[in-house]
Amino acid sequence: AFQDVHVMIFVGFGFLMTFLKRYGFGAVGFNFLLAAFGIQWALLMQGWFHSFKSGKILIGVENLINADFCVGSVCIAFGAILGKTSPIQLLVMTLFQVTLFAVNEYILLNLLHVKDAGGSMTIHTFGAYFGLTVTRILYRPDLEQSKDKQGSVYHSDLFAMIGTLYLWMYWPSFNSAISDHGDAQHRAAINTYCSLAACVLTTMAFSSMLQKKGKLDMVHIQNATLAGGVAVGTSAEMMLTPYGSLIVGFICGIVSTVGYVYLTPFLESRLHIQDTCGIHNLHAMPGLIGGIVGAITAAAATEDVYGKEGFIKAFDFTGAYQTRTPSVQGGFQAAGIVVSMLMAFAGGALVGAILKLPVWGDAASENCFEDDIYWEVRRGE
Amino acid sequence: AFQDVHVMIFVGFGFLMTFLKRYGFGAVGFNFLLAAFGIQWALLMQGWFHSFKSGKILIGVENLINADFCVGSVCIAFGAILGKTSPIQLLVMTLFQVTLFAVNEYILLNLLHVKDAGGSMTIHTFGAYFGLTVTRILYRPDLEQSKDKQGSVYHSDLFAMIGTLYLWMYWPSFNSAISDHGDAQHRAAINTYCSLAACVLTTMAFSSMLQKKGKLDMVHIQNATLAGGVAVGTSAEMMLTPYGSLIVGFICGIVSTVGYVYLTPFLESRLHIQDTCGIHNLHAMPGLIGGIVGAITAAAATEDVYGKEGFIKAFDFTGAYQTRTPSVQGGFQAAGIVVSMLMAFAGGALVGAILKLPVWGDAASENCFEDDIYWEVRRGE
Amino acid sequence: AFQDVHVMIFVGFGFLMTFLKRYGFGAVGFNFLLAAFGIQWALLMQGWFHSFKSGKILIGVENLINADFCVGSVCIAFGAILGKTSPIQLLVMTLFQVTLFAVNEYILLNLLHVKDAGGSMTIHTFGAYFGLTVTRILYRPDLEQSKDKQGSVYHSDLFAMIGTLYLWMYWPSFNSAISDHGDAQHRAAINTYCSLAACVLTTMAFSSMLQKKGKLDMVHIQNATLAGGVAVGTSAEMMLTPYGSLIVGFICGIVSTVGYVYLTPFLESRLHIQDTCGIHNLHAMPGLIGGIVGAITAAAATEDVYGKEGFIKAFDFTGAYQTRTPSVQGGFQAAGIVVSMLMAFAGGALVGAILKLPVWGDAASENCFEDDIYWEVRRGE
Repeated sequence: AFQDVHVMIFVGFGFLMTFLKRYGFGAVGFNFLLAAFGIQWALLMQGWFHSFKSGKILIGVENLINADFCVGSVCIAFGAILGKTSPIQLLVMTLFQVTLFAVNEYILLNLLHVKDAGGSMTIHTFGAYFGLTVTRILYRPDLEQSKDKQGSVYHSDLFAMIGTLYLWMYWPSFNSAISDHGDAQHRAAINTYCSLAACVLTTMAFSSMLQKKGKLDMVHIQNATLAGGVAVGTSAEMMLTPYGSLIVGFICGIVSTVGYVYLTPFLESRLHIQDTCGIHNLHAMPGLIGGIVGAITAAAATEDVYGKEGFIKAFDFTGAYQTRTPSVQGGFQAAGIVVSMLMAFAGGALVGAILKLPVWGDAASENCFEDDIYWEVRRGE
Repeated sequence: AFQDVHVMIFVGFGFLMTFLKRYGFGAVGFNFLLAAFGIQWALLMQGWFHSFKSGKILIGVENLINADFCVGSVCIAFGAILGKTSPIQLLVMTLFQVTLFAVNEYILLNLLHVKDAGGSMTIHTFGAYFGLTVTRILYRPDLEQSKDKQGSVYHSDLFAMIGTLYLWMYWPSFNSAISDHGDAQHRAAINTYCSLAACVLTTMAFSSMLQKKGKLDMVHIQNATLAGGVAVGTSAEMMLTPYGSLIVGFICGIVSTVGYVYLTPFLESRLHIQDTCGIHNLHAMPGLIGGIVGAITAAAATEDVYGKEGFIKAFDFTGAYQTRTPSVQGGFQAAGIVVSMLMAFAGGALVGAILKLPVWGDAASENCFEDDIYWEVRRGE
Repeated sequence: AFQDVHVMIFVGFGFLMTFLKRYGFGAVGFNFLLAAFGIQWALLMQGWFHSFKSGKILIGVENLINADFCVGSVCIAFGAILGKTSPIQLLVMTLFQVTLFAVNEYILLNLLHVKDAGGSMTIHTFGAYFGLTVTRILYRPDLEQSKDKQGSVYHSDLFAMIGTLYLWMYWPSFNSAISDHGDAQHRAAINTYCSLAACVLTTMAFSSMLQKKGKLDMVHIQNATLAGGVAVGTSAEMMLTPYGSLIVGFICGIVSTVGYVYLTPFLESRLHIQDTCGIHNLHAMPGLIGGIVGAITAAAATEDVYGKEGFIKAFDFTGAYQTRTPSVQGGFQAAGIVVSMLMAFAGGALVGAILKLPVWGDAASENCFEDDIYWEVRRGE
């Protein structure tokens, strides 16, 4: 399972972002850079906070998975600012975001005692709103100077499909990686699987329906097909049931595709949020849906469905939380969503302000989405 | 093992078909669509038939693997009609083929008590002859209007090699996924591995020998190298021995490469079977060989080689089948081949007739093998 | 773990070498050919030497992993002569190198009782110096005739990044594949992981610093980022500690990047070593470093750190080796480096001389790095 998550972070996110015609090196290369840096920083952070014993840091496979999760939220935020920032800015953002991620995760999992195995709230909602806030603050009014480079070409779309397929296939492992072995892990994988499969169908249908001539748009297929995995991140290990997962997947495919067609242009023109990869549609909205579905599923839990022992185990109603009821748990889950969003807005505003300082060597607007600034590029055949 | 099979279906088959210069989106995208749809439909079908208990469907990992297998046969049939059908037609075909696959599998495994762990008969022979029958009925006499689009370009061949390598690497997992844990699974993986390795060598040698100037043809390398895996699908978990596997692999590399050079043009000009990916060479013939090798290996089984317990376990000679002898089992295996082919011809004829109805919006012949009809395509650099 | 190593050999090495603009088919295709051939030959060799019982060869999964390792060293040597040899030459080289690999491995592991789980010495040092010796003997003074084909284009660099990422991600599995289950395996994976992550950072930093305009060079990112994995091959399963791994990774990223910028041109102009992929920087130097680090780590081992039992187990100080001390073990490790290099030079000289015979149909210098000689190529859109 650890290797599966690893593939998602490096190949999945890396290639998903290669769709830009002249920014393939930046997408794969900078994703590689920030992921490698983020993992080390996350391991150190975890080590200092959680497993610091007699001057030594103890590292196990579960630490590596947690570090990958943490980096996942950075990769998501990277999607919003893709093509507009320098590698130094990305490293600075990674440094701060990993730290804030750890704080947010601590509040949710330890203080609020929220369940979020697949990270709908901690990874997706937090990562996406963080990235969107950063890109809002870094708003470039003159970005249409590089509008011609902001599209894809035939081969770049195929490279991006490599990323999509790997994310899609390994998402069940992602959502079940840190669940308890046995029932919960099994459940998480199968629920995710059903949601993703349903999501592909509605994405295809709506992508075709919303276009003038009924043609499919590769951007939707690359992204919206994954929304179903995001949206069951919290609830996958709970008793969502396959039917419930299919419904969540169906809805998310629609929401995400509609978002790409109508919401992204609106965000850019009205709210000045320039969201290169459309993470609002793939991570922010489905992440919110995931948090809400998780809260509802938790509130609706009964001992009948889970069995007495399974019920206590599923929500860790032990020790100080022995007396917590499902409906209270649902309330805390909802609180988790709010906390994640507030942390994302505050953190994003802080980091955005830092990145706006004129010392980081970011590219001029006419050079955005262009590898030539940071890479030795050999073109032509 | 489940994830391995999953990678084969989505990345392996998806990218294997991207070799066409202007149909890469269709290959990956429609494969993604029909696989996601087929998996859901297969899960429901299995649920209704096999694991329906008190109004609920029970889903486990073995169901997911079976659904993947089922979808594998649809992907094979897709190879024959690639570039000539609309997405709606593909969904209709998937709907029917998944159903027929389940019926055929039921007849073979439950009624005839045939062993077919890697699906030489149920997946490859059935899927390939099904697809070939469909493409025969959908014959387009004026297809040479799009002849210029039916080839590959340099980069599309490299994308296809991604598919080939993933299929090649994970084929041992495919053939051993549903074998009994322990000896049989081990045996299946190693036999498949040997057969595939041998197949690569003869494919390379014959690809070079059959060409005028001794040059290698990428089409052969992409496809015929996999024939060895198809051909040990039935017998891999039996005592085929590594030497036996090497011989099967050697032969299949030759048969498949010769098929691409001589048989595919013959099928198109004389029998009016337009087989885009050459599935006759990769799946139909090696599948038949696999069925026959399986029948012979089963008929030749003795207690000396398997051990008394291993023998009974290998062929499930328990309960009603307690008195079945190896030679009788060999006969039933042979009957399984015939049944699979008959089901494929009948089913393919039915589905082909349905798809010939002028309501599905398939492309005109001059627009075949062209993404522009169904996709928003941004070309040029 | 076996599948992970398999992916590295076929996808990792295959695509890593597709960076040449007109030699993508050769890179993937010939790598596929020699890997499939080498695996069979390695299995037979192992079978005859180690597991020959009553006329039969016994094959298990560990044999397959060993065969993959053996082929790994052939793929490394292939990197030095990429684009300059015919497929027949590659098969001849594979035949000899697999044999010599087995002899060298036998001397190191059985006679010197050296530990080398990730193969810094047996795979990387041996494979790289073998390949460099061969390419020295096959020196082509007129190779600048095909200088224009020896570069990359945009898309070929992206294909190569697929190889890089797969090698990078699965390297922890590679280094831990044949370690004892449990502690040692765990340790090997985590140490490798840390070293690789650190290596990415220094590679990026130095790639930018050593270039005139501070631009990153894709060649460095594709290759030097992996040097950290090579350099902990021997010591990963020992008590290198995460901090130690980070330091090794940091150093190797620098050494390897500096090598690409300054050493490769020097080797070509002065020593007449034409090293297509720069294996001297990725495998030879990091392999040497890995051997030395391994010798030091072994010599520094104490019972305090490993625990009494762990200490004996880690170095197999049992039977005839019961009385060996850590410092003696360190000496033998150092001897292993020397033996590997001598074997590589002698073997490479022999094989190079054989390949220089004018009977193998290698391409003229103006046709090097060109698929057209050996493949049917369809270019243009």
